[in-house]
Amino acid sequence: MVVSRVYMDWNATAPLGEPARLAMIDALTVPGNASSVHAEGRTARAGIDKARRQVAALVAAEPANVIFTSGATEAANHVLTPDFRMGRSPLLVSHLYVSAIEHPAVREGGRFTPEQVSELAVTRQGILDLQVLEAALAAHDRAEGLPLVALMLVNNETGILQPVAEAARLVHRYGGLMIVDAVQAVGRIPVDIAELDADFMMVSSHKIGGPKGVGALISRGAALMPAALIRGGGQEKGHRSGTENFHGIIGFGAAADAALEDNGANRLRLEGMRDALEAGMTAVAPDVIIHGRDVERVGNTCFFTLPGLKSETGQIAFDIEGVALSAGSACSSGKVGQSHVLTAMGLDADLGALRMSIGPTTTSADIDAALAAFKRISGRRRSAGEAA
Amino acid sequence: MVVSRVYMDWNATAPLGEPARLAMIDALTVPGNASSVHAEGRTARAGIDKARRQVAALVAAEPANVIFTSGATEAANHVLTPDFRMGRSPLLVSHLYVSAIEHPAVREGGRFTPEQVSELAVTRQGILDLQVLEAALAAHDRAEGLPLVALMLVNNETGILQPVAEAARLVHRYGGLMIVDAVQAVGRIPVDIAELDADFMMVSSHKIGGPKGVGALISRGAALMPAALIRGGGQEKGHRSGTENFHGIIGFGAAADAALEDNGANRLRLEGMRDALEAGMTAVAPDVIIHGRDVERVGNTCFFTLPGLKSETGQIAFDIEGVALSAGSACSSGKVGQSHVLTAMGLDADLGALRMSIGPTTTSADIDAALAAFKRISGRRRSAGEAA
Repeated sequence: MVVSRVYMDWNATAPLGEPARLAMIDALTVPGNASSVHAEGRTARAGIDKARRQVAALVAAEPANVIFTSGATEAANHVLTPDFRMGRSPLLVSHLYVSAIEHPAVREGGRFTPEQVSELAVTRQGILDLQVLEAALAAHDRAEGLPLVALMLVNNETGILQPVAEAARLVHRYGGLMIVDAVQAVGRIPVDIAELDADFMMVSSHKIGGPKGVGALISRGAALMPAALIRGGGQEKGHRSGTENFHGIIGFGAAADAALEDNGANRLRLEGMRDALEAGMTAVAPDVIIHGRDVERVGNTCFFTLPGLKSETGQIAFDIEGVALSAGSACSSGKVGQSHVLTAMGLDADLGALRMSIGPTTTSADIDAALAAFKRISGRRRSAGEAA
Repeated sequence: MVVSRVYMDWNATAPLGEPARLAMIDALTVPGNASSVHAEGRTARAGIDKARRQVAALVAAEPANVIFTSGATEAANHVLTPDFRMGRSPLLVSHLYVSAIEHPAVREGGRFTPEQVSELAVTRQGILDLQVLEAALAAHDRAEGLPLVALMLVNNETGILQPVAEAARLVHRYGGLMIVDAVQAVGRIPVDIAELDADFMMVSSHKIGGPKGVGALISRGAALMPAALIRGGGQEKGHRSGTENFHGIIGFGAAADAALEDNGANRLRLEGMRDALEAGMTAVAPDVIIHGRDVERVGNTCFFTLPGLKSETGQIAFDIEGVALSAGSACSSGKVGQSHVLTAMGLDADLGALRMSIGPTTTSADIDAALAAFKRISGRRRSAGEAA
């Protein structure tokens, strides 16, 4: 009988943190529409402005350059467009280049046609191949329009860091624009939009302890902007219409604030727990493959393959043992499909892989429980193998 | 000194109702991502399915035909597109016809180019002119593609009902598609998607006591669908990607449920209060013009012009008196512009107009306070006039 649950799926959705929860409960009682000029409207406006400063700080950007959206997926669809403006002049983008390990929200290509999107290969280590990027940029015909390149800072499945700053230097040398999906990076590693030389970044609230349903598109400056995706009442300076998700934005701000205040203390603690977990797994099952173990990863993610255990079976087995984890990303409703990340890394996607991802409220007891579940599941796998 | 505030801007944003607030506070503790297959994910999924039934009931639609969005503005941008599919076959729409009094989210035309959008005139009574609609449909060249017609069921500024069922019959006779903005209608009058013969409807949570940042696009059937606006992980059966705004959707469902349960009891009470307010205003200032008084209106809205009082001045004056009301719609961030609705009705938009809109928690004391403020402001206007 499962008495308590161990939640190890923070990369899918982090449980709502206390700072966000308290700020939201408070915000729920503000009646106004932030676009109204009366006192109630002005109170809502002030709250949103504060959250804008808090979210900007997460990536060291200017508050004025934060556009609140319904999430990172909307932000990606907003910025992935052939239709940009530099001030009042149209700026045409002719092709989108994305790494082969991007999130589906980026791989789908936003407002580009499928013919206008190319994938860039990654190395067997799961890292964008910069030579592949440079070759693509060199072959790009700028007479047709600028190249747009999208690269995630941290991969959602493996946790592996990507060479964003190096890629951005190349992209800018070839006159292109650099889009960075920072969803799995913020709150886990320090992020600075200028240091990374990104033109745009997408971030999501529910990956850092804020509510679901809110995110942001953050630009480096104010002059270069994509055409609006959602038009209407002209909110967010015309870049994103629709009544603001007031309490969601307030919760996002509070979560951003808490993530910054933590200042890495949790990161070291999480990395220690994750490393202990992986050491324990290797001791129990020496044949376990831990993806990305030899390259730079965020400290909260463990993406592993246990030979003989399919992803679907493994995920259900852990769920029954009381451990919530994920087979790849949780983005495709209910689908437990093959990992495009494994395939991109040149591995047999049939191998299957499972992801454990932890966060600030994860305890050593959770790690012990997950390891005990791993041991039982791994043991059954061996007995099944011997019986066959 | 203003001690208590009177909130009369429900058409901009209704204060969050208790059913939604309690449901959301509860929902905030559910950790899972509704796309995850583990127990936590399944709990989130079950909550969303329940809300889908509750929101469908609001317009007597099939739950499976509800697509949750970040609000009605996104829903409008989603459905206002030349790119539809009937099953697997593409269906081209060549032109969008909108009434001249639609909300900016509709008037902007979504994914149509400005050349592909035409406005249909309304009568001096503020009602779509059905002869104008029929003439436009008769002149439409179907060889280029189908006509798409968008008409709101209740106007946000005047509260005036529009002849949606009659318009839909015409649209369908000419082989077109009918889109209905039901944002200001649900919870105020009974709405039935089949009776109105609408192909699609947009609804918004924060106009009926649910949270901001959530709405829905509701279709009549499942076969005819617009191309997705936001693509990625494939949530909402691929029609709207992005992790679901779980607590927002739960709050929307609870608010929809409460609005239906009320079953019109509040409507009669609100209409009585609104009529008393208007009678009092007329007694105090016989020259006040109450727009739409002689035609069918929802019972919560009073849109009026007080000659000699500009909208901007009036809105600020009421705010100082402790009454939150609106000059037209609150959709354009901070703009207190001229009302396109007044202009469409053939009135001088310079006249200015103010909107008082009330809701279930409005009390007779609120009405008395608003009337007292109206009396003071109207009186000052007279003295100023005499002094000039």
